[in-house]
Amino acid sequence: MALDLHDYVASIPDYPEKGVLFRDISPLMADGEAYHQATDQIVQFARDKGVEMIVGPEARGFIVGCPVAFELGVGFAPARKKGKLPRETVKAEYSLEYGKSALYMHKDAIKPGQKVLVTDDLLATGGTISATIDLVEQLGGIVVGCAFIIELKDLHGRDKIKGYDMLSLMEY
Amino acid sequence: MALDLHDYVASIPDYPEKGVLFRDISPLMADGEAYHQATDQIVQFARDKGVEMIVGPEARGFIVGCPVAFELGVGFAPARKKGKLPRETVKAEYSLEYGKSALYMHKDAIKPGQKVLVTDDLLATGGTISATIDLVEQLGGIVVGCAFIIELKDLHGRDKIKGYDMLSLMEY
Repeated sequence: MALDLHDYVASIPDYPEKGVLFRDISPLMADGEAYHQATDQIVQFARDKGVEMIVGPEARGFIVGCPVAFELGVGFAPARKKGKLPRETVKAEYSLEYGKSALYMHKDAIKPGQKVLVTDDLLATGGTISATIDLVEQLGGIVVGCAFIIELKDLHGRDKIKGYDMLSLMEY
Repeated sequence: MALDLHDYVASIPDYPEKGVLFRDISPLMADGEAYHQATDQIVQFARDKGVEMIVGPEARGFIVGCPVAFELGVGFAPARKKGKLPRETVKAEYSLEYGKSALYMHKDAIKPGQKVLVTDDLLATGGTISATIDLVEQLGGIVVGCAFIIELKDLHGRDKIKGYDMLSLMEY
């Protein structure tokens, strides 16, 4: 019997600022059965697409993507904030509400032609995931899908990644 | 035939500062076979101790610990920097070369009496891992082991976690 993963999401009003209802998946990850079920669903999605590499943005993208990589027997490459990667990198900028931020990947993180699944915990406005896709494509990787635990429908992040296959385990 | 994991460590001279030889495990994680082998070794160590929960510090501790949690069918709880966790937290400070830093965990991340394995990529001076152990113990968890991909012997981090069972897959 499958669990209802919604039971493992904590909803925090007015975080990080007033008027925002924050969806926190830490209860899901802290529960072995729920974490396993969520991972299994993403593994199935990835397997159908012949995924050869998982890429996730810092830091919750690691929690989602790493067990998927392990179960598929493929590698994991992180997309990180400035100053976190010691070797030569590529860079992709993205917009925040005020100003800009950027993500980086090592230049040798992806082999050209590799089929990549991009993972994160949450699809909101889609800025982070678009930057991650940009990095993979700069390195010659082929993004065959994006997988999220939660999609926040009202923020229309899906529109930013049109043309990419997408899985979200829950919608709010 | 087991891989020699040393072949999957990049050594970067003078990073993050002059005179430091940085050990980077990103090639290990990017290789499906090497990542799987490293994870399997930690899973075996954890299974022997009856581990019920994995805890890892931000952010490479997630990459090491999350597939171990998945394979064991247990949960994962992150120890994070300030401002990253939305609900009520406990805090542990640790010393850096200049000044202090702190890690946080959600108050409900661990159930009292749970057997916890703490994971990180690298044991250096032991500050991060000591703070992580402190958090687990504040929450009533029992740290039954610590597992690292790499131990830097010259920095004597092992002395900071005397009394805890420890696994390191490689020493430098």
